Amino acid sequence: MRILGIDPGYAIVGFGLLEAGRGQAKLLSCGAINTPAGVAMPQRLLQIQEDMETLIRTFSPDVMAIEELFFNTNVTTGIGVAQARGVILAAAAKLGVAIFEYTPSQVKQAVVGYGKAEKRQVMDMTRRILNLGAVPKPDDAADAVAIALCHARSRTSRLYGQ
Amino acid sequence: MRILGIDPGYAIVGFGLLEAGRGQAKLLSCGAINTPAGVAMPQRLLQIQEDMETLIRTFSPDVMAIEELFFNTNVTTGIGVAQARGVILAAAAKLGVAIFEYTPSQVKQAVVGYGKAEKRQVMDMTRRILNLGAVPKPDDAADAVAIALCHARSRTSRLYGQ
Repeated sequence: MRILGIDPGYAIVGFGLLEAGRGQAKLLSCGAINTPAGVAMPQRLLQIQEDMETLIRTFSPDVMAIEELFFNTNVTTGIGVAQARGVILAAAAKLGVAIFEYTPSQVKQAVVGYGKAEKRQVMDMTRRILNLGAVPKPDDAADAVAIALCHARSRTSRLYGQ
Repeated sequence: MRILGIDPGYAIVGFGLLEAGRGQAKLLSCGAINTPAGVAMPQRLLQIQEDMETLIRTFSPDVMAIEELFFNTNVTTGIGVAQARGVILAAAAKLGVAIFEYTPSQVKQAVVGYGKAEKRQVMDMTRRILNLGAVPKPDDAADAVAIALCHARSRTSRLYGQ
């Protein structure tokens, strides 16, 4: 099963593609979509939409795993991230990819075994589980790989909106 | 100039199309995109994306006027609305429609002449300015018409992201 992990954002969208099955998972690709800061938001969202569709067509994932959105202190940033997340979800729906969502603590629990693990621990365990020489860069890509790994290791996955 | 006013949402997207020029404005069309409650969010967002593109291709607006998003008490609803707004902005960017955004108080100021006007006053003034027999239905459509009217009456419009 090919799992495309996504760490949503409007400036950077991290992605990580895993091949998972029979208790094993292998990292096939990871990276990030970057949108330029000087460009108006609608254009940045359009770029994310187009790049996501290209990613999905290129990778042909069976499922997308994406982080649930919570708003903390910075609501303005949160609106931007939610707008980008909307475009990402629509792209996956358009191309028929099933979407699963996970909270940050679910990702920590699945990868480290402890829902309140530090971000650094999640990154290190991701690297070890996947036998990588180093933690993927940028951080957004590493987060996306961890989300994909969370799906690979989760028995009780929740299909988005159901 | 054709102005497409949009009241964003994930369950209902209100729209209103005005022809405006030389101090006059005429309502050409208004209504709403509705997405079914029982359907998963990604599918609802995809429907909004496709319906918005159809609307824009059908109406050929010169500009889109859309309400700025603020989060108040219901953050969960806010995330959904922001996700839908992202899809709407991307659709306008894709089809080359310039986007202007207005705060609720800017809409009230432009339509009623008072930034803290009641919603009912905005609706009534919208009806009177456009010589309509009744306030457009549903409310989301009436809101969208008011936003379009705000753009028609605003001299200091702000292009999104600039």
